[in-house]
Amino acid sequence: MAVAWECAAAGLRLLALLSLLSLELAAGARWSGEGTSPQLRSIFLGRCAEYITLLSPQLGDRNCTAIWEAFKVVLDKDPCSVLPSDYDLFINLSRHSIPRDKSLFWENNHLLVTSYSENARRFMPLCDVLYGRLGDFLSWCRQENASEDCENNAVDSYWKRASMQYSRDSSGVIYVMLNGSESKGAYPVKGFFADFEIPYLQKDKVTQIEIWVMHDIEGPNVESCGEGSVKILEERLKAMGFQYRCVNDHHPVKLLMCVDHSAHPDCAMSSRSLCVIHAGLGLITIFLPQYPERWDCGQYPQAWQVILTLII
Amino acid sequence: MAVAWECAAAGLRLLALLSLLSLELAAGARWSGEGTSPQLRSIFLGRCAEYITLLSPQLGDRNCTAIWEAFKVVLDKDPCSVLPSDYDLFINLSRHSIPRDKSLFWENNHLLVTSYSENARRFMPLCDVLYGRLGDFLSWCRQENASEDCENNAVDSYWKRASMQYSRDSSGVIYVMLNGSESKGAYPVKGFFADFEIPYLQKDKVTQIEIWVMHDIEGPNVESCGEGSVKILEERLKAMGFQYRCVNDHHPVKLLMCVDHSAHPDCAMSSRSLCVIHAGLGLITIFLPQYPERWDCGQYPQAWQVILTLII
Repeated sequence: MAVAWECAAAGLRLLALLSLLSLELAAGARWSGEGTSPQLRSIFLGRCAEYITLLSPQLGDRNCTAIWEAFKVVLDKDPCSVLPSDYDLFINLSRHSIPRDKSLFWENNHLLVTSYSENARRFMPLCDVLYGRLGDFLSWCRQENASEDCENNAVDSYWKRASMQYSRDSSGVIYVMLNGSESKGAYPVKGFFADFEIPYLQKDKVTQIEIWVMHDIEGPNVESCGEGSVKILEERLKAMGFQYRCVNDHHPVKLLMCVDHSAHPDCAMSSRSLCVIHAGLGLITIFLPQYPERWDCGQYPQAWQVILTLII
Repeated sequence: MAVAWECAAAGLRLLALLSLLSLELAAGARWSGEGTSPQLRSIFLGRCAEYITLLSPQLGDRNCTAIWEAFKVVLDKDPCSVLPSDYDLFINLSRHSIPRDKSLFWENNHLLVTSYSENARRFMPLCDVLYGRLGDFLSWCRQENASEDCENNAVDSYWKRASMQYSRDSSGVIYVMLNGSESKGAYPVKGFFADFEIPYLQKDKVTQIEIWVMHDIEGPNVESCGEGSVKILEERLKAMGFQYRCVNDHHPVKLLMCVDHSAHPDCAMSSRSLCVIHAGLGLITIFLPQYPERWDCGQYPQAWQVILTLII
């Protein structure tokens, strides 16, 4: 979740990633005046207006300008002395409840989570909560020419504060999407989830934690449930007294990953493979007189598929 | 694409739909002063800044304020006397090229197209072009208490002008996503695509038109390629001299539709059904000693699946 950043005390830069394009793009917009960037302010206020007007109109009484004013106090601070608590007022003004069973935590899966949650329609990860949406894929106060980020930088402190709030407000079944193809392990033992989310989950509000270990369609399969760092996570949750289960390649998410790999064998639909099998057996012309293009049986009624399945 | 709208000469309303939530929400924000709404202006400028800063930084020299000023002249006009040409300056300021083979036209599929294009990552439908993005899911100048929209209303004229520009600027293979479950027919013979897009396609720039007829996972199957209104479309394109092909339930889009119907038989993956078949034959315990939870074979290496397929 942490985005590399750089900043100059005199001239701050907006450096941003757009998730949905998977592009890393330097906007190069210099801060001016009171340390505000027209682009950052405009994007922030636009996202806020869109969220409270279109996405969640029950939040319509929120004052986006006040939320921005609370946020931008950090822009005038020393870029290595921004604490999570500096965002307290910002969080208090933008905070709202998270629907039960809709929390979705993650590591190393930002674009997939953004795509899967679909603006809070399926799940409500932190980036679909108002206070997470406002800074998502943005960066501010990046330390220029620094080989390493200082600990108390503005962006990390923002995500620490937001993550803690998100965890405290989560309830019911908690979902966690991990990347089983990540070479460094699916569960970073030092990371936002480990350090700023798990410790703040409210045991009396959480009924279960369900871990999804997703693997890239083309692999590699580095870790699965019960293995390596996933095992460390499972043992930690068990020790804390949480009910949990772990699922490899949760089917709906796998289907979403398959959209970009539709020709891969793992992404073939069963109706298709039934057709292939039948072709191999030479039976298809009997059952499906109008032989479909490209072995695509999807257009045939489900009844046919049941019959074919029974025959096999 | 047309969104119902209402407007009062004295007080215009922002009435908007959020695609990604599939919610229809009355924002109820009244226009004031010069006929501008803080929400509409803020959303418009925020989207513009986000587009040129994050999504398409090569457009970074565009002036969002000037684009807004060009757009908002229609807000001061009689709401029944707005012509497509009133958006000429707006279009000229916001227009940019569309990548070859990336145009995606559609009817009755707005949410699916938005989700599939993924902010121009896969395709660039009109709503992922800057001038389409700015008004997407928004409504302005809606006629209050009118039983029917007047023809020259501000929103329809906006989409007419934007659609014509989009068609003129499209090149290479043109894709069209239609809804084969739509009761009124997949191809509206009177509609934005029929009236304001097809006529403006540039024959010398278009190499082929590929029609995708998508059917809802739960059905019904109202029309497919070669049937009903799709046949009318195919004949029209043929008469115009375009190369075209028609595909039912284009596989990548079907996979995306399956994300919300992952338990439906049409959405089972072939690796899964192979496991089911093998279980039926009683062979699975021989080949797969660690019997997977929920018939999920996705975690096994592809080599296993090839072996299983060969055996079948």
